Amino acid sequence: MLRSLSDYREIVGDGVLSEIYKKSLKICKKHIVHINSTYQGGGVAEILPNLVSLMNDAGIDTGWRILHGDSDFFSITKKFHNALQGEKINLSKIKRRLYLENNESFSRFTHIHHDCVIIHDPQPLPLINFQRKHQPWIWRCHIDISHPNQELWDFLKSFILRYDLMIISDNEFYRKDLPIPQRVIYPSIDPLSPKNMEISEELIRKTLRKFKIPTDKPLITQVSRFDKWKDPEGVIEVFQRVKEEIDCRLVLCGSMAADDPEGMQIYNKIMNKPATKKLIQKKDLIVLTAENQILVNTLQRVSSVIIQKSLREGFGLTVTEALWKGTPVVASKVGGIPNQIIHEETGFLLQPKDYAGFARVIVNLLQDPGLCEKIGSRAKEHVRNNFLITRHLIDYLDLLGEIL
Amino acid sequence: MLRSLSDYREIVGDGVLSEIYKKSLKICKKHIVHINSTYQGGGVAEILPNLVSLMNDAGIDTGWRILHGDSDFFSITKKFHNALQGEKINLSKIKRRLYLENNESFSRFTHIHHDCVIIHDPQPLPLINFQRKHQPWIWRCHIDISHPNQELWDFLKSFILRYDLMIISDNEFYRKDLPIPQRVIYPSIDPLSPKNMEISEELIRKTLRKFKIPTDKPLITQVSRFDKWKDPEGVIEVFQRVKEEIDCRLVLCGSMAADDPEGMQIYNKIMNKPATKKLIQKKDLIVLTAENQILVNTLQRVSSVIIQKSLREGFGLTVTEALWKGTPVVASKVGGIPNQIIHEETGFLLQPKDYAGFARVIVNLLQDPGLCEKIGSRAKEHVRNNFLITRHLIDYLDLLGEIL
Repeated sequence: MLRSLSDYREIVGDGVLSEIYKKSLKICKKHIVHINSTYQGGGVAEILPNLVSLMNDAGIDTGWRILHGDSDFFSITKKFHNALQGEKINLSKIKRRLYLENNESFSRFTHIHHDCVIIHDPQPLPLINFQRKHQPWIWRCHIDISHPNQELWDFLKSFILRYDLMIISDNEFYRKDLPIPQRVIYPSIDPLSPKNMEISEELIRKTLRKFKIPTDKPLITQVSRFDKWKDPEGVIEVFQRVKEEIDCRLVLCGSMAADDPEGMQIYNKIMNKPATKKLIQKKDLIVLTAENQILVNTLQRVSSVIIQKSLREGFGLTVTEALWKGTPVVASKVGGIPNQIIHEETGFLLQPKDYAGFARVIVNLLQDPGLCEKIGSRAKEHVRNNFLITRHLIDYLDLLGEIL
Repeated sequence: MLRSLSDYREIVGDGVLSEIYKKSLKICKKHIVHINSTYQGGGVAEILPNLVSLMNDAGIDTGWRILHGDSDFFSITKKFHNALQGEKINLSKIKRRLYLENNESFSRFTHIHHDCVIIHDPQPLPLINFQRKHQPWIWRCHIDISHPNQELWDFLKSFILRYDLMIISDNEFYRKDLPIPQRVIYPSIDPLSPKNMEISEELIRKTLRKFKIPTDKPLITQVSRFDKWKDPEGVIEVFQRVKEEIDCRLVLCGSMAADDPEGMQIYNKIMNKPATKKLIQKKDLIVLTAENQILVNTLQRVSSVIIQKSLREGFGLTVTEALWKGTPVVASKVGGIPNQIIHEETGFLLQPKDYAGFARVIVNLLQDPGLCEKIGSRAKEHVRNNFLITRHLIDYLDLLGEIL
């Protein structure tokens, strides 16, 4: 759990470590603080603890604070999150008020004497209004803000404008209407986390047995929450087309958040459709809702093909994870996925609604183990060079070196 | 949400505010930090944010950090929590290791330059091992540690010994085997929180309608998690005896934690018993699992009697809350409850297994509104003088004034 830079030496090589140590030296007298809120899903919460640990290991005093809020606050910021991605929102006075009040409360017991403040995502964004600013503040936005709800965006802009710089996850998210500097830092995965680390054949077998996943036919897998943007029903549609050509199994693996009624609905819809019911009965469709990193790791390794048929995507870290396992990925050309998948080189990109295309590429891959091998090993190298936590750390060091 | 001391003026009076300002002045140049982990239930997480806010409002820079951990860590510390109350535990090497590692990780990005550190409960207890100590450290234990599992206690003692002082919630929890100073600070409730604030008749009516609670018969209520120590089945037993004498309704109100399989079992057992099924059908037993502070507030106000039939209890803040509403409370003589209830003065105390006694006292109360009135108003004054957040704050100011 407690990682040191040297743990990554074998994976990224001496050169990368040496670059990190050199760049850290320039800012080693500085005290940085990251502030996020735990309750955001996925990649951010997974990578930040280790990123912060590694920054400290590199010699930079780096703090990490978690914005505390009640369930009202988090239900509001979840709506903000969705609205930043374009959904409608009723931006009532009370929502604005609770959002600000929560930040004001947190601010009262958060004494910031640091040399630089990095704020993650919209939850703690207004903190800057409640602190005397005497250092650079950076807003690190992990969300696709290319088509935000205009009313919300305008409201949030009043805080963003106070920042000295905004970090976005993709060039596509660049905001022409913002006069502050914007900089792309791609997210990353941690190759030593339970989800990504090398695991033994024995653990793989044990995990497959535990979750009752047979491997007598090729597996096609999508790892994603049951969310309309991840289009699990579309995945089943593609699978049915593939299955007309080659006998195989589909695994849908996604944890169910207890506070996500929409996810529950989508899940139930899948489970109750006569066609899918039949597939499930025959064990040709396996639906897993356990939250288990080793299970994800295992599936990404044993599957013949990983599919990611998202209709919309942030960066798409589940794609990164799959690419890192050397398994061929067939994915939608949306969000940050095209940064990771070079078509026909490190994987395959298709229009999200191109069911026939998805099916054709998957059939092709299932019939050509040599192609899988070639694509998979290029995919892994691409991730090694571009999307590991060490690269992420270097990006921060470069940025901090420039502004401090 | 953001509270100021002046908000409490009407409730506690000018003298108390003036005392707080005076005592704060003595330590106003100091920088304090509280560290807890959000994931603990009940009173601690509820009171700490406001306590910290008020300390800042009183002029003392007071930080608050939340120990971050993964689900493994919290499942281990939950077992620790239960074992500190006497349950068995398999204190495996891996449990010890994960407990320590999590604290070590947190320590790496937690830079403590404060004048005093206050650690709450067992989760962040070992932090002291991973920091260079150059200020007083206080361990604030909110748990009944009078009969801990010995093996665990011995393990935790190795950390506790490094502390300069331990705060306990009751004299009964005093540890003769600890050579460090121990001091009792009673917990408290916040009279301005949604759970305790004055609410309008209209909101009460609306809440009762929303949760389908009729008021045509007297209500007897227990507010508590579905936990064996809260003895919900015993409450039903008492209720059945009361009902033989006077027609009334029982409300059991307790939120269900998704990660509490034991609670689920107890809940299911209640819901599936033929006798209780019949009561539920006739609406004479109402079981509410919503987590809703206004609901609790409403129930504590509209009920004729509040029962707290715990077999074991920490301080028993649900009792404090009920007493504050001026509603008569009939409770077990366990844990911190006898500090709050002076028998036949501010409420009624009984042996936990004395079903007949509980029933007799409740019947008495239901038949004597004058007695209810008298007991209730004394109860409210007792809480005003002893168990509000302002008294809690003064205790901290006294303590800090002594050791800083």
